[in-house]
Amino acid sequence: MTKKTAYNIAVVGATGAVGKKITQILEQKNFPINELKLLSSKRSAGTKLLFKNQEITVEEATPDSFAGVDIALFSAGGSVSKQLAPEAVKHGAVVVDNTSAYRMDNEVPLVVPEVNEEDIKSHKGIIANPNCSTIQMVAALKPIKDAFGISRVIVSTYQAVSGAGNEACNELENQTKQYLNNEDMTAELLPVKGDEKHYPIAFNALPQIDVFQENGYTFEEMKMINETKKIMHAPNLPVAATCVRLPLFTSHAESVYVDVEKEGLAVEDIWNVLRDAEGVILEDDPNTQTYPTPLSASNKEEVFVGRVRKDLDNNKGIHLWVVSDNLVKGAAWNTIQIADRLIKNNWL
Amino acid sequence: MTKKTAYNIAVVGATGAVGKKITQILEQKNFPINELKLLSSKRSAGTKLLFKNQEITVEEATPDSFAGVDIALFSAGGSVSKQLAPEAVKHGAVVVDNTSAYRMDNEVPLVVPEVNEEDIKSHKGIIANPNCSTIQMVAALKPIKDAFGISRVIVSTYQAVSGAGNEACNELENQTKQYLNNEDMTAELLPVKGDEKHYPIAFNALPQIDVFQENGYTFEEMKMINETKKIMHAPNLPVAATCVRLPLFTSHAESVYVDVEKEGLAVEDIWNVLRDAEGVILEDDPNTQTYPTPLSASNKEEVFVGRVRKDLDNNKGIHLWVVSDNLVKGAAWNTIQIADRLIKNNWL
Repeated sequence: MTKKTAYNIAVVGATGAVGKKITQILEQKNFPINELKLLSSKRSAGTKLLFKNQEITVEEATPDSFAGVDIALFSAGGSVSKQLAPEAVKHGAVVVDNTSAYRMDNEVPLVVPEVNEEDIKSHKGIIANPNCSTIQMVAALKPIKDAFGISRVIVSTYQAVSGAGNEACNELENQTKQYLNNEDMTAELLPVKGDEKHYPIAFNALPQIDVFQENGYTFEEMKMINETKKIMHAPNLPVAATCVRLPLFTSHAESVYVDVEKEGLAVEDIWNVLRDAEGVILEDDPNTQTYPTPLSASNKEEVFVGRVRKDLDNNKGIHLWVVSDNLVKGAAWNTIQIADRLIKNNWL
Repeated sequence: MTKKTAYNIAVVGATGAVGKKITQILEQKNFPINELKLLSSKRSAGTKLLFKNQEITVEEATPDSFAGVDIALFSAGGSVSKQLAPEAVKHGAVVVDNTSAYRMDNEVPLVVPEVNEEDIKSHKGIIANPNCSTIQMVAALKPIKDAFGISRVIVSTYQAVSGAGNEACNELENQTKQYLNNEDMTAELLPVKGDEKHYPIAFNALPQIDVFQENGYTFEEMKMINETKKIMHAPNLPVAATCVRLPLFTSHAESVYVDVEKEGLAVEDIWNVLRDAEGVILEDDPNTQTYPTPLSASNKEEVFVGRVRKDLDNNKGIHLWVVSDNLVKGAAWNTIQIADRLIKNNWL
């Protein structure tokens, strides 16, 4: 069978923060598209969006939307994926799903291409895109694990509101204006849409992302813990996470502590493996105050690492500061990378 | 000798963010003051400030300013303390110093009253007030250490700009307005006044507080590491810190990982000791989304702890979220507490 040179692509959730970013990157990267279908909920259907200077009308996503689609990129929330991803697969599409619906399903590969590209091969129609804060952390940890082994990870996150969607960005902007005008802040969405209580995020820090689980951890924290083990093929790796939402629009940062297996490493040893790592950019020089920040990483597709330090007490301990755009590498770009590897490797 | 009933107090750095907070709390607490001297640099001398509805003219701080002063509360920067604290002592005053000038001096007690009040007793004229981020952490760790032992601490901080003074608050406010107006942000101060590079703090996170040391850690991180060991009388306790400045005006938060010595503790065991701890308020209920935040802790004098969790892999590991107002307990209130204990214990 001759390989196609262009593909029919569907974007589900096309009017959302991630969906828009996906369409934008498909255009920038000149992805080999035959037909692009932009799909959404009934509510947003009819919206017109531009792709390569052509207006595309967003259609309501239904099971029949996927007839003739080669690859469907889902980012419309877990319930939509649960309902429609199997329908897309039935119609012969391969789904790259950006929600948490299938991530921990044993039948579904969970992929960061720089870390576990080969896992894509065993897909049965659905490939899951990991949680944004997980993606950037494993991209930084993988080269360290390969070179020196890893026996423990403890992470505290500094996460942007765009991870909670366009509405959350509006909420941060509105609250910021209210605060500066000495008005009471209106908190109706964060930390979690639909949860019982809402707190202001402007000039604040909320130690809750997603809902609480029975063990006292939030779902976001459990995603980081469980997804990291799955992606790195390290089911017994101890991983601990504390996830915090902050008044940033874009890019997550992470303070990561790692125990490596090899003793006596120097900072230069870590620098060397990070410099050579795919998708990672080392920005680390205390002498020139060089380190990544959420603003400096925004709209870029790489994972940036700085502040590499040896622990002062534990000879196997390393501290890192990891920053990446949560909507780009943390969502849209990683999704498109998976689609790209599906095609390049003939794994469709 | 009869104990005085009111004292001559000097506030050095009276026009700064911490100095103003000190004067405000002295008034609120009805501190037993005979005469209050407000002192500053030559530049700010002449400013008029209100204390209990009386106008006080700020005077330039000189060696002679301390004649007759019983207690001098310094927060005008390390170089002023280096120069004038010994002069105040020569004039018979006891100095409570809020800068880093004397903190690691073996002759100077470094005190958080809830943790090591007894250390005040051995002062030789100067008592040091610890760094803000250290104070709130040790207040939360002390009861845990006393009950269960502590063998390791790893902290990542979420710090407000007011720790860098009034000017830093103005910078955050101005940059925020610029960003919302789509203007370029003016960065002239943060992360560190006088350092070579400056980065915007609005909608950003800067992994640098104070200048870099030769070992790749910032001075703020080394303060947390060294001061914690000194205050807790635990010179060999492994402490690691990553300090991050955030777009918050007030209150620092900390994600703290602790290894306790006792095995098999339940979250309830930690809750119980924190509930009984002096100066600590437990705010922790995942079922009702109860946890402290920088906004909820602002203008309060306690240290707030929430998100207490057992590590999922390490049976001796505990995670905490610690929040406190960096200008109140982190600076002014802790300083005044030390002054108060000096008087109450007859240790002047």
